[in-house]
Amino acid sequence: MTWTIGFDGDDTLWHNETLFSVTQDRFRAMLSHVDPTELDRRLLDTERRNLNFFGYGIKGFILSLIETAIEVTDGRIEARDIQTILDAGKTMLTHPVDLLEGVAETVERLSDHHRLLLITKGDLFDQESKIARSGLSPHFAGVEIVSEKDPDTYRRVLARHGVRPERFVMVGNSVRSDVLPVLALGGQAVHIPYHLTWAHEAVEPPVEQAGYVRIESMAALAPVIAGLPKR
Amino acid sequence: MTWTIGFDGDDTLWHNETLFSVTQDRFRAMLSHVDPTELDRRLLDTERRNLNFFGYGIKGFILSLIETAIEVTDGRIEARDIQTILDAGKTMLTHPVDLLEGVAETVERLSDHHRLLLITKGDLFDQESKIARSGLSPHFAGVEIVSEKDPDTYRRVLARHGVRPERFVMVGNSVRSDVLPVLALGGQAVHIPYHLTWAHEAVEPPVEQAGYVRIESMAALAPVIAGLPKR
Repeated sequence: MTWTIGFDGDDTLWHNETLFSVTQDRFRAMLSHVDPTELDRRLLDTERRNLNFFGYGIKGFILSLIETAIEVTDGRIEARDIQTILDAGKTMLTHPVDLLEGVAETVERLSDHHRLLLITKGDLFDQESKIARSGLSPHFAGVEIVSEKDPDTYRRVLARHGVRPERFVMVGNSVRSDVLPVLALGGQAVHIPYHLTWAHEAVEPPVEQAGYVRIESMAALAPVIAGLPKR
Repeated sequence: MTWTIGFDGDDTLWHNETLFSVTQDRFRAMLSHVDPTELDRRLLDTERRNLNFFGYGIKGFILSLIETAIEVTDGRIEARDIQTILDAGKTMLTHPVDLLEGVAETVERLSDHHRLLLITKGDLFDQESKIARSGLSPHFAGVEIVSEKDPDTYRRVLARHGVRPERFVMVGNSVRSDVLPVLALGGQAVHIPYHLTWAHEAVEPPVEQAGYVRIESMAALAPVIAGLPKR
């Protein structure tokens, strides 16, 4: 049976949170006089407050790092440290796209029998650049870069591609963005947790809910798709 | 005759460059010890260099302002001034959407007989927010937020909406982004210059080229559309 399979990008097809994590480690090292737990908390507060202004993505993260650095130092941070943060942002934006294990083979194999969509959120420019560099584009019938992944977003994307939710499976690492909104529409979701999760995305998985499947790695995806019940 | 009419957003439907201009005025005032012409030149250099990292939009502009401020002060700028730049960015991102004169009536009127698409570039999150706040969404059959406006982008957008270039007219203020790539595909372009143009977008209009029409304001658009020759 043929499905339309949506794939998340960041931390599903390619490593992403590791990049944020490495930059945040450097940020802690730069502000070593601040308690690291307190610094993480302040940064998360800033990021959440700034989501309404910046949305998701690296540019907003960098702006939030700068703002947090100014706050926690009571304005005593030096300009050269702020330049270091800017440079870290550019390093993130040009970092090679590093596919997760098993992704290339699985995407290629599934694209033979199913229609694949790439549905990812973040900065438009950055996501397009990563998709192009990933080499995966030829396997996807459509690419949708969205500002938020809620049920309305998925409804719009599915309508645009003429897909009924009953014939749609979303594959991703985020319970909040890839699993819950798709289940809410009557679709199915295959959850592949990544070893790091941004605190803002961390939500308990709906382990008892129909349509939810959790697997440990991309290698297990093709058999799960083959065995999906028609709903 | 029914056309598909593409509208640019920034400085075509709503004021935008004025916001950048006001912020840049404040930036000059903050760095009043630097020659303003030299400062503008340094900022434009930074913005162009950073386009490859950040793409278009307010977040990239703010990051470029910060980087320029650090550069031109040889790292002596104070953190509180950088905070002022960050705050200016947030002001830009939440500024009310101010429609240009005649836009609301013209868009409503044209949508009765033609299919309208909104085709705009910049930050996904910011553009979506502006479109929602503009109140114009109900008149558009489709909204496309793109990272660059070149012939390939227009080709993809037109294919997605099943429109032949011969049946497409693009309306916008930028020769570089709204006029030339559409003419290159065999479409038509109505150019409505805005009183301010970002130096990066400033290109001579192709006044002799078939398919190019220049008007002074949105009020002149409906008659021009009514008189477009079939190509």
